[in-house]
Amino acid sequence: MKLATLNEGRDGRLVVVSRDLSRRADASSAAPTLQAALDEWERRAPLLRSLSDRLESGALKGEPFDPERCAAPLPRAYQWADGSAYVNHVELVRKARKAEMPESFWTDPLMYQGGSDGFLGPRQPIPLADEAWGCDMEGEVVVVTRDVPLGATREQALGAIVLVGLVNDVSLRNLIPGELAKGFGFFQSKPASAFSPVFVTPDELGTAWRDGKLHRRLEVFLDGQPFGRADAGVDMTFDFGTLIAHAARTRSLCAGTLIGSGTVSNRGPDGGPGTTVAEGGAGYSCIAELRTVETLRSGAPKTPFLKRGNRVRIEMRDEAGSIFGAIDQVVGD
Amino acid sequence: MKLATLNEGRDGRLVVVSRDLSRRADASSAAPTLQAALDEWERRAPLLRSLSDRLESGALKGEPFDPERCAAPLPRAYQWADGSAYVNHVELVRKARKAEMPESFWTDPLMYQGGSDGFLGPRQPIPLADEAWGCDMEGEVVVVTRDVPLGATREQALGAIVLVGLVNDVSLRNLIPGELAKGFGFFQSKPASAFSPVFVTPDELGTAWRDGKLHRRLEVFLDGQPFGRADAGVDMTFDFGTLIAHAARTRSLCAGTLIGSGTVSNRGPDGGPGTTVAEGGAGYSCIAELRTVETLRSGAPKTPFLKRGNRVRIEMRDEAGSIFGAIDQVVGD
Repeated sequence: MKLATLNEGRDGRLVVVSRDLSRRADASSAAPTLQAALDEWERRAPLLRSLSDRLESGALKGEPFDPERCAAPLPRAYQWADGSAYVNHVELVRKARKAEMPESFWTDPLMYQGGSDGFLGPRQPIPLADEAWGCDMEGEVVVVTRDVPLGATREQALGAIVLVGLVNDVSLRNLIPGELAKGFGFFQSKPASAFSPVFVTPDELGTAWRDGKLHRRLEVFLDGQPFGRADAGVDMTFDFGTLIAHAARTRSLCAGTLIGSGTVSNRGPDGGPGTTVAEGGAGYSCIAELRTVETLRSGAPKTPFLKRGNRVRIEMRDEAGSIFGAIDQVVGD
Repeated sequence: MKLATLNEGRDGRLVVVSRDLSRRADASSAAPTLQAALDEWERRAPLLRSLSDRLESGALKGEPFDPERCAAPLPRAYQWADGSAYVNHVELVRKARKAEMPESFWTDPLMYQGGSDGFLGPRQPIPLADEAWGCDMEGEVVVVTRDVPLGATREQALGAIVLVGLVNDVSLRNLIPGELAKGFGFFQSKPASAFSPVFVTPDELGTAWRDGKLHRRLEVFLDGQPFGRADAGVDMTFDFGTLIAHAARTRSLCAGTLIGSGTVSNRGPDGGPGTTVAEGGAGYSCIAELRTVETLRSGAPKTPFLKRGNRVRIEMRDEAGSIFGAIDQVVGD
């Protein structure tokens, strides 16, 4: 089934969405909010599924689904932990800075604790007070868990995944070096992230969901031009089970925890950084990676970071169309 | 007024507590949970205050207040951001590692994004799966904000503080160097924090609450022995207004955001690291700081980190007694 949250009040109103994203049905008889559904998933998921089945069969007529009216599926959450599972991407960025990447990065996942107190809806502008901060998009896959016990294994962690979606992990690149040098991780450099209109249960993904990875291309557009189409199932060094188990090593995770994949990134056919979409390659899911490639090629980055008025679109399709709806945001002030 | 949360369900049940912490009254007529109260503070705070007044006057009899029955006032929260405002402490720890502290640390606050999806109640054991992780307490002051707009000034930030309390920011010291070396900040090294039984409105603190600081001694005990009694109002380089404004520089903060002071720490009379409580000094609010002092004095740390069965108590008193009730936790498994 597919779930969305209408932008009403702090936690929004939960709706069930048809597979083709054309219609929605009020889900308040099953759960008022997505967090409420996740808090009692065993009991509430069957109620939601029954609504979903009736919407799909036409027994429930529903209303037109408009992503413009959506908040993030969880407008605020108790936890947003973002991995950096495409180690290829990390190695590349370091290479451009002529920094060695420790070997351990291939075996010990990178993950940061993100702010989760307020997310952007899929069509809300990205607030940017200062263009000099170097605003960038990061296209990623995200999963939502139910409760995960402390010390969970990868297999337990995989079983705890109840929903899958997309995220634009907005980053302020020019604030990152200063913050990382202080040693306490990201804070000001990671403002509110935006999420896809719809989160879906893994069964909606068919065989594209396997081995704890989502084997589909993540389509990223900048001002309407194709920017990236990397396959999220390729070059993902750590699958979602491994990422969740990493997060749960020293503490339990609450239902409604969001775990991000990190910026999706594919190597080129030669094992290198690949090429742009215009050149026939898989492109990139963030501007920083393209700037890195530009630096490696010609000594300096060429593509600027986001400015006010730029438009970012992130989407993923299957044979039937858009799976999660599109994140489609303009940079505002 | 003083507020607590009884340990019932995921978000607990809100109660108003008498000034002397002897009695409590159900607050569900005003707000079912503390987060619900914070979400509509303008409307709900007066209702809570009226209950508090009636409990204080005896018009409302209430029931005995038992901190053993308490969850954290916010059993889970949308944001926990912990500063490191006692820069003295940071400088000291670096000195023991023979590392220079950048001058900017005196002007640019250190802050990390902490996990907020599940907190420990004031009397709940600290789960510790592996003693080799080097478990430590960190005694801190914490404030709770209502909504803070992006780009808030220090003055706006100070006005957004609605509650004050204490926190034990549990740390796994031996996991920290590895995590910080990876550059993404703390994750596994910061398991669930524990909070005082009661959070109070700033007016309860009288003149001890001024300049965005709480001018009272933070009493820390280890296995019943006095370990620290540093004044939280002294040597706090960044007041809470500055910490909150730092957090809100690039994004707004949701009502119910918890902002920590970092480990409370006082210099000695000579400007140095001070002495233990047994030696007549202000002592320390975490074991790591004492180990640092031991290293500076004799080349190696002597005091071990927490082991199962150790007991940590953190409290703050005014002339009338305990302000927030005591955090009193045994290390468990």
